[in-house]
Amino acid sequence: MRRMNVGIAQFAMSSDLAVNLDRAEAHIEQLAGDGADVICLPELFASRYFCQTENPDHYALAEAVPGPTTERFEAVARKLDVALVLSLFEQRAPGLYHNTAAVIDGPRGYLGKYRKMHIPDDPRYYEKYYFTPGDMGFRTFDLRVGRIGVLICWDQWYPEAARLTALRGAEVLFYPTAIGWHPEEKDSHGVQQHGAWETIQRSHAVANGCFVVSVNRTGFEPEPGGSADEGIQFWGQSFAVGPDGAVLERLPESGESTAVVSLDLDLMAEQRHGWPFLRDRRIDAYGELASRWLDD
Amino acid sequence: MRRMNVGIAQFAMSSDLAVNLDRAEAHIEQLAGDGADVICLPELFASRYFCQTENPDHYALAEAVPGPTTERFEAVARKLDVALVLSLFEQRAPGLYHNTAAVIDGPRGYLGKYRKMHIPDDPRYYEKYYFTPGDMGFRTFDLRVGRIGVLICWDQWYPEAARLTALRGAEVLFYPTAIGWHPEEKDSHGVQQHGAWETIQRSHAVANGCFVVSVNRTGFEPEPGGSADEGIQFWGQSFAVGPDGAVLERLPESGESTAVVSLDLDLMAEQRHGWPFLRDRRIDAYGELASRWLDD
Repeated sequence: MRRMNVGIAQFAMSSDLAVNLDRAEAHIEQLAGDGADVICLPELFASRYFCQTENPDHYALAEAVPGPTTERFEAVARKLDVALVLSLFEQRAPGLYHNTAAVIDGPRGYLGKYRKMHIPDDPRYYEKYYFTPGDMGFRTFDLRVGRIGVLICWDQWYPEAARLTALRGAEVLFYPTAIGWHPEEKDSHGVQQHGAWETIQRSHAVANGCFVVSVNRTGFEPEPGGSADEGIQFWGQSFAVGPDGAVLERLPESGESTAVVSLDLDLMAEQRHGWPFLRDRRIDAYGELASRWLDD
Repeated sequence: MRRMNVGIAQFAMSSDLAVNLDRAEAHIEQLAGDGADVICLPELFASRYFCQTENPDHYALAEAVPGPTTERFEAVARKLDVALVLSLFEQRAPGLYHNTAAVIDGPRGYLGKYRKMHIPDDPRYYEKYYFTPGDMGFRTFDLRVGRIGVLICWDQWYPEAARLTALRGAEVLFYPTAIGWHPEEKDSHGVQQHGAWETIQRSHAVANGCFVVSVNRTGFEPEPGGSADEGIQFWGQSFAVGPDGAVLERLPESGESTAVVSLDLDLMAEQRHGWPFLRDRRIDAYGELASRWLDD
């Protein structure tokens, strides 16, 4: 039986960068001690979610990938013999930035990166200001314990992204995420927004017969310059899903929490043999998926 | 406000074809009386689900589309001033058959058809024996009350099918369906199979910001030549979903049941404005969706 023990660290970010990096390292140490092989942290865990406003001062948060943060965590991963999925704010050149995830595998060090392909932009999520859409396509990474795909937050709404990563053989799709409620909308839309988010990621597991692991932030982060109740209430509820779409683990809405979820990778073949969706894709009829809209 | 009142007729099929057609007509009359604008019946409602075995005698069930059954129901649709989505076994030529859905719109009569693009084949669902995969692509139909897309059963597992139909402007995706449990698997897999089925169709609503209506059979149909407990236990639970992924209506597991669900089509724009997924599709990076597998 092939197993991958996935560690999920869900936490809130401080305005003090050093605190966030230390907290991340502490969670990684704890999860490694709990038996995790691969540990994923929330999106852009090194800082508050700075995209709530468009402010050029925030470009100073960006760094090379690989760079200082991957170097620090390569040492951690080597010491603990674990793999890491780390979401970082990448500076590629002055004036050219990406929302990027680095993958590190224990003694093998930095393996490579994925640059977020789908960039959102809506109130308090002004990511198009900061991040150029990824230009590396959809990618997988061969860890010692299996092949993983890495996607980031807004990518999770696109079946195309999950499919293209699964077609490259990903056994587990990781989604570092920073998603939450506008507090003023939570009562009216909160349950359905969260439900849609979990549903579509569960559907990626079903459609592709693979595992999905989504790791979110928790806590309230105020909007700079806003009133006390303006900001984002991150909804936590990080989760892991099996290839049949069943939720294997769901963390709470608030507070720091971690989990190690043991994935039985052999279930993928069992699921795909029962419902052989990949066999029947109509690739002769899918060319128009590369169209923006199919006008009359 | 633009509304489409969708009628769902969920029922079990008799081995007597005339009974099925009469029952379908009775359900249509009732639903039209309840205010339905568009009525959808289960997949291949004119007969038992004959694909449980591979038997050339069953080709005799096929008919031209348009043909006798569409003519009968065109008269019904005209009389009641309703639109119909009718799943039929189409004979295109001797030895060439399709799993086809016809669309009829009241006084406008027969509008056209969709031929099921994804054909399953697994124990008790031997559809590849009977049906040539569709060669008309993914289609929409302009009814007087709105633009609908029609897909059929196994298509529901393919995000590509939903996307391509939504990109043609479908406001509601209809899925006539015949899906059930193998009785011997129901205890071990029943809940998760049904959950996966509903989840992936809800995800099509979320991904595309449109409505989804899935209409299933009910009842137990024995496998010809099998023992008394061998066959398919159709799981009913037809449902309608809004563009936010929320289930608007879910019918029971067993027995005959109907529902009229009033869809507020203006919710589509509201949903797409809140989460503008269509804006950000990476059509420059989707070409490989037309690949079978992305080998190393």
